[in-house]
Amino acid sequence: MTADLPIIRLRPKSRPQAIRHGFPWVYADELVTDRRTRALQPGSFALLEDATRQPLALVTVNPESRIIARVMDPDPQARIDRDWIAARIARALAMRQRLFDRPFYRLIHAEADGLPGTIIDRFGDAAVIQPNAAWAEHMADEIADALREVTGVATVILNGQGRARSLEGLEERMEVLSGSVSAPVEVPMNGAIYLADLAQGQKTGLFYDQRPNHAFAQRLAQGARVLDVFSHVGGFGLAALAAGAEHATCVDGSAPALELAQGGARAMGVAARLTTRQGDAFAQMEALAAEGAEFDLVICDPPAFAPSKQALEAGLRAYERVARLAAPLVAPGGYLGLCSCSHAADLTAFRNASARGIGRGGRRMQLIHTGQAGPDHPTLPQLAETGYLKALFFRLDG
Amino acid sequence: MTADLPIIRLRPKSRPQAIRHGFPWVYADELVTDRRTRALQPGSFALLEDATRQPLALVTVNPESRIIARVMDPDPQARIDRDWIAARIARALAMRQRLFDRPFYRLIHAEADGLPGTIIDRFGDAAVIQPNAAWAEHMADEIADALREVTGVATVILNGQGRARSLEGLEERMEVLSGSVSAPVEVPMNGAIYLADLAQGQKTGLFYDQRPNHAFAQRLAQGARVLDVFSHVGGFGLAALAAGAEHATCVDGSAPALELAQGGARAMGVAARLTTRQGDAFAQMEALAAEGAEFDLVICDPPAFAPSKQALEAGLRAYERVARLAAPLVAPGGYLGLCSCSHAADLTAFRNASARGIGRGGRRMQLIHTGQAGPDHPTLPQLAETGYLKALFFRLDG
Repeated sequence: MTADLPIIRLRPKSRPQAIRHGFPWVYADELVTDRRTRALQPGSFALLEDATRQPLALVTVNPESRIIARVMDPDPQARIDRDWIAARIARALAMRQRLFDRPFYRLIHAEADGLPGTIIDRFGDAAVIQPNAAWAEHMADEIADALREVTGVATVILNGQGRARSLEGLEERMEVLSGSVSAPVEVPMNGAIYLADLAQGQKTGLFYDQRPNHAFAQRLAQGARVLDVFSHVGGFGLAALAAGAEHATCVDGSAPALELAQGGARAMGVAARLTTRQGDAFAQMEALAAEGAEFDLVICDPPAFAPSKQALEAGLRAYERVARLAAPLVAPGGYLGLCSCSHAADLTAFRNASARGIGRGGRRMQLIHTGQAGPDHPTLPQLAETGYLKALFFRLDG
Repeated sequence: MTADLPIIRLRPKSRPQAIRHGFPWVYADELVTDRRTRALQPGSFALLEDATRQPLALVTVNPESRIIARVMDPDPQARIDRDWIAARIARALAMRQRLFDRPFYRLIHAEADGLPGTIIDRFGDAAVIQPNAAWAEHMADEIADALREVTGVATVILNGQGRARSLEGLEERMEVLSGSVSAPVEVPMNGAIYLADLAQGQKTGLFYDQRPNHAFAQRLAQGARVLDVFSHVGGFGLAALAAGAEHATCVDGSAPALELAQGGARAMGVAARLTTRQGDAFAQMEALAAEGAEFDLVICDPPAFAPSKQALEAGLRAYERVARLAAPLVAPGGYLGLCSCSHAADLTAFRNASARGIGRGGRRMQLIHTGQAGPDHPTLPQLAETGYLKALFFRLDG
């Protein structure tokens, strides 16, 4: 295969050692971008060499992306085909089978699982592929074939939505590649049952990343009155009910998401203990305070308020406001969980904003746990700083 | 009480807001240290005022410590006595009872649990107090009284050992304040049984902080061949055996610690699946490599190689060496857990040293989990940067 491949080359001052040590990306300004390189088709493969023409890796190229090349295989002789993809999926599957009792997890977490820019979530005998890099878009059929072969799933959905794709110059699309999707699927997790509407994609799909944080919240939930703000399909609320919460209130702006939360509660047989409130989360928290409502456990899992560096300051102010409005709703000696899925807000900045908000909400606090995404969301240590999900659990004063 | 208390005052340029927002310490250079302040007895109480003579908090003073004052209570009128201590212990107990099924945990984690410089570990109906601040040393009897009253423990041991005490100008001592200690106690944790020799203190005692990391290792341990390097009394090894590991090898320099590991394995009925190797951990890892030994899960939990900023560089080299020697012992597709309990080595520095060592050991890796101390080791958010325990779990290439 290498005989046919175009060659791209690092500039003399770029650092080939990073690639040799496992860093998976080449930025546009690190590459000699002559006319031939610029003419490469997005998603095509190439042989990456250092400035002295030593081969470094087999890469995929996208001249339209700031990440102009992504390492596919450190072996320059590798052949990227269905078998190669199947081997990567089999390796990822072995880890998930060791970690999880049931086949509901993120199966492929992009670079860290060896399939650059590619996400695959598994829901029993269905799977959703998000090809967020051009090579994966072109090879979606080979990925789906390998996925069915290795895992035995019947239904495969291609979900081509989201911000990552536009950075790669890919258009939005949604397609059922095999099998069929009708009603939302039931997803068992931490003893709860969630409904995920796979055909609707991210709006009413399911995120596996909060699984360990749901589990931690469950340890605080026995007999508790629970408030789940920005609940989506009921992530923390249904987990708390599964762990014996007395009652849970889910607040979200999306009526379809809250309907799925209620459907999950019905499937669990706990619908009588769930209340949903649809509307703006900030306004709902203010309304609850005005009603004199009090909860033993409050969780706030808002959307990314700081999705980019430009949005960082405004985002941190929004996180502080969440904490300030939530703190007064927590009973004396109760617990408050605050989450951020913003890449740009690092742990220290998010923790400081949260602590400031709790203080301005009139409460003192201990920090008892800092959670992150589960192990079905591995990272490369070279990219670990970008670990985006943070969940802080505080105990407030009595 | 305040009428009797001496007054100490912040300098004009120090920041009283930090104290008002919950920061618990005053450093010596922040205080007006006149002759009267310098003459205060270590461990005495005082009223802290800002530069404008507004009261800030009731504090304990130790002119011999770099931390010259620690906030006891934000209420300047508070009276620090047995009842005050009992209220703090009751509050801490409520959280542990919610989090843990059985009474084996760190009950008081110093500042974050409202008893500055004071550690209390509970082992069923026995407890060990570490008074690492002068006030707690003076009030040890009141603390023990309150502890018995609130928790019902019979045996109370005062363990006056360790580095923290010397920073406070306190001498080493060990004393049984009530009850009796004979054989090592059995400590159930994560389904394993550990033996803790409470009378011998830190050398063969037990650390609860690794509990969640033991639990994560258990998810990787079913049917696995496990190596636990720097095993102490068998922390990861016995946890792995409890989770169905085929076999565990514990390596430690301390023969008494390894005897306790074997005793734990006997109590669990798994002694036939445990091997211990006494000796230098580095030499033992090299010997295992020379023997061609291979493990599905290797854990290294060394002592603090970087206990201070001065020791940071040498410490990071030692962590890298641990990773380099451990990586070749991991089977293809197996798992490697690397721990650090060094304050001075932050997460990023420790992760980089670990990844470098694994790379130099000839392996590629994914980072699947970053663990920390359990929730019975709470922190104040203002001090959360000092979170000392880090546990990184890697999956190595197949």
